[in-house]
Amino acid sequence: MIDQSKRFLIVGLGLLGGSYAKALKQKGYSVYAITRSQNTIDYALARGWIDGGSTEEDPALIGQADFVVFGLYPHTMIEWIARNQTAFQPGAILTDVSGVKCNVVDVIQEGLRQDVEFIGSHPMAGKEVSGVQHSDETMFRSANFIITPTEKNTERGIGFARELAELLEFQHITSLSIEEHDEMIGFVSQLTHAVAVSLMNTNDNAHLKDYTGDSFRDLTRIAKINESLWSELFFLNKKNLVREIDEFIASLNDLKQKIADEDDEGIRKLFIQSTKRRKYFDE
Amino acid sequence: MIDQSKRFLIVGLGLLGGSYAKALKQKGYSVYAITRSQNTIDYALARGWIDGGSTEEDPALIGQADFVVFGLYPHTMIEWIARNQTAFQPGAILTDVSGVKCNVVDVIQEGLRQDVEFIGSHPMAGKEVSGVQHSDETMFRSANFIITPTEKNTERGIGFARELAELLEFQHITSLSIEEHDEMIGFVSQLTHAVAVSLMNTNDNAHLKDYTGDSFRDLTRIAKINESLWSELFFLNKKNLVREIDEFIASLNDLKQKIADEDDEGIRKLFIQSTKRRKYFDE
Repeated sequence: MIDQSKRFLIVGLGLLGGSYAKALKQKGYSVYAITRSQNTIDYALARGWIDGGSTEEDPALIGQADFVVFGLYPHTMIEWIARNQTAFQPGAILTDVSGVKCNVVDVIQEGLRQDVEFIGSHPMAGKEVSGVQHSDETMFRSANFIITPTEKNTERGIGFARELAELLEFQHITSLSIEEHDEMIGFVSQLTHAVAVSLMNTNDNAHLKDYTGDSFRDLTRIAKINESLWSELFFLNKKNLVREIDEFIASLNDLKQKIADEDDEGIRKLFIQSTKRRKYFDE
Repeated sequence: MIDQSKRFLIVGLGLLGGSYAKALKQKGYSVYAITRSQNTIDYALARGWIDGGSTEEDPALIGQADFVVFGLYPHTMIEWIARNQTAFQPGAILTDVSGVKCNVVDVIQEGLRQDVEFIGSHPMAGKEVSGVQHSDETMFRSANFIITPTEKNTERGIGFARELAELLEFQHITSLSIEEHDEMIGFVSQLTHAVAVSLMNTNDNAHLKDYTGDSFRDLTRIAKINESLWSELFFLNKKNLVREIDEFIASLNDLKQKIADEDDEGIRKLFIQSTKRRKYFDE
């Protein structure tokens, strides 16, 4: 259990950063924030989610933090850490919320001071909306938290990430290498978003609005997508994602060919396989 | 409003047929059923959803019906009508629940007695489960009902279908030609099922179960699919469906190329378009 006297700094107080702050304050920790907008700080202060904050990259505020959580986009975080790394206190532990780990965690660790540790972590929680005003720590209780240690990490850093996830009450806490993480996320998250976006972009389908049922709505809900964040995540993981898209297209072309050929036995096998696999995911 | 003295016959008492029977009995109509299993008849009789039924194609029972609703698979229905058409009473109106209309409605109308009318209709409602025991007339209240008249239909037949949909309390009742219907359904229903099935069949993804969130589950829920019904529906509409799959793959390949090229402006345009279109579907 993380010592209650420890102090957290959240850099980037958006939906996730705000939810972290809210949950950590509820558990009795000191929580400060650095974020772009004074309105965001005022909003969180008024609700008691933080003890203080600044819109400046204030070295004193940074130096007082035992733990720093970055709620920034990957590239912004990489640049922020490079720019401010002399300000961290010796022994400080840093972590993130990024959806991609290769080209992020490794890059940060490569350039980081030896007496400060960065441990990658990915809270697999989110909403269709962004901003501190939508902060909701209860979304963590049904979500996965993935810790992505590398050979540069210590038991202390990995232990911190695990204890943080426990404090935040994540349902599942697991550990993957950064390569395993990005391969997994390429399939379960990025491919599904690519499919939803492409389905929504197929034809001009506006005239079909009155005919769509739950199936179509379920498949396209995530086609509402933050273009700045997701373009960055897609490019960072492009090798995995391009391969996953190719494999999915091969799977769909196989089904298409069986439809064109009216291959009754073949198509039934595909339906039986998808049904069996999907039932397994219901367990 | 359909005269309360009129008598309905439901042929094929499954999930949809059972839900029709239940709703029509609640509205005070006489409802009979012909279905394969005596257990099904006993189940519906015990609950007061039908007044009587038979497992035989009984000419007397068929001849007493003013309106016949077919809850059968398309090919089974086509054969059933051909086999029993001398039994219908003069002036009887027949309708169906099929998810594909070309190669079904036109084929039936072509072979039908001149003094009997078949009007195609498609209740866009369903569940992941089948069978009379899951009958639930309330699912119609948020669903679309599509009437698919052809030049062979009369005002009387089209009016019957509309009044039936009103009795069943469908939310929206619309009319499309059989060609328009199948083109629409190829996109909003069949393509989405093909995508979900193919996503579930991409790679061996069982080891990813612990990492999947709501997005993946939403996109693959309909990958649990009745292989007998859907192979038939896909083959009946293969021309539209193959074209829709090709157009979707082109859309996905366009996104893939922009990822591979790190075309930031291009990918943002795709995300902005999908977001805008999807929001329109929320209205």
